[in-house]
Amino acid sequence: MDLKALIPVIPDFPRPGVGFLDITAVLHHPQAFAWCIDQLAIFASRRGASSVVAVESRGFLFGAPVAQRLGLPLVVARKPGKLPGAVHAVRYQTEYSTDELHIQQHAPVGATPWLVDDVLATGGTLLAVSDLLEQHFGVQAGGAGVVVSLDFLPGPARLQARPLLLDALERYPA
Amino acid sequence: MDLKALIPVIPDFPRPGVGFLDITAVLHHPQAFAWCIDQLAIFASRRGASSVVAVESRGFLFGAPVAQRLGLPLVVARKPGKLPGAVHAVRYQTEYSTDELHIQQHAPVGATPWLVDDVLATGGTLLAVSDLLEQHFGVQAGGAGVVVSLDFLPGPARLQARPLLLDALERYPA
Repeated sequence: MDLKALIPVIPDFPRPGVGFLDITAVLHHPQAFAWCIDQLAIFASRRGASSVVAVESRGFLFGAPVAQRLGLPLVVARKPGKLPGAVHAVRYQTEYSTDELHIQQHAPVGATPWLVDDVLATGGTLLAVSDLLEQHFGVQAGGAGVVVSLDFLPGPARLQARPLLLDALERYPA
Repeated sequence: MDLKALIPVIPDFPRPGVGFLDITAVLHHPQAFAWCIDQLAIFASRRGASSVVAVESRGFLFGAPVAQRLGLPLVVARKPGKLPGAVHAVRYQTEYSTDELHIQQHAPVGATPWLVDDVLATGGTLLAVSDLLEQHFGVQAGGAGVVVSLDFLPGPARLQARPLLLDALERYPA
């Protein structure tokens, strides 16, 4: 599947100078979406996933079908104020601010949770979720899967340094 | 599947006096989640869905697997600032504020898009998406599916008055 031909790069979104990969093109194309879910499920399976941890909110779009395909629990990592009950929290720096993600304390992450998001850029979000799992659940993530990895940004190197094993369906540049 | 036994009601979340149905219990339970996706897909199919329109962000969790199950395009209705390119917008009143949802102008909604969200409460969101589809795409939604309908709130009656055909996996109270 030629995702690069399918996914348009939208210039200057969400701010000037940034080229935004619009993954809704994948969602609009059932065969391409099915291929992505198939491939991500294969990666998750190979990494021994005990659960699929999907990052709000575009990660939900890929994480939910992958978890269903594999018959694994789906755990959601959400922004503050969204999850009821006791949560574990992690704070992390983004380019412009400090963000925070929560996972419910009773979430069935299992021994090797596998993370999923749509695009890997700086890696801040995936590394934060990995930190949360390690610090609060005492487990190492089995890996992380993304539709697209932006290899000209720091994310892939930061994940490799951890290490947090990365599987990407497409890389920019190749 | 006894969703009522599975889904806990969390008191006073997100604010005092509100009982919050925590649908993450479904996500954590692969068999229950599969049952929900199966049933929602059957409803969508019976309503002649040309696409699945999922409302940000919990609607993504159910809409993505349903679209994949049926091989239909997945269209996302998102909050402002999230979708690149030209969008159609709808504004609507909620209990405390005016909200806005966007759908991309080129989204392949087809002739009878089918809406999905997790919980039907006041119905404001689903009716807003239905308005957007009618006003900007010139199509009537084939219906709306939710995991849970709160029949003691105005949502179900408002959808019926439109009419926007509703399918719910569980109703409170029965």
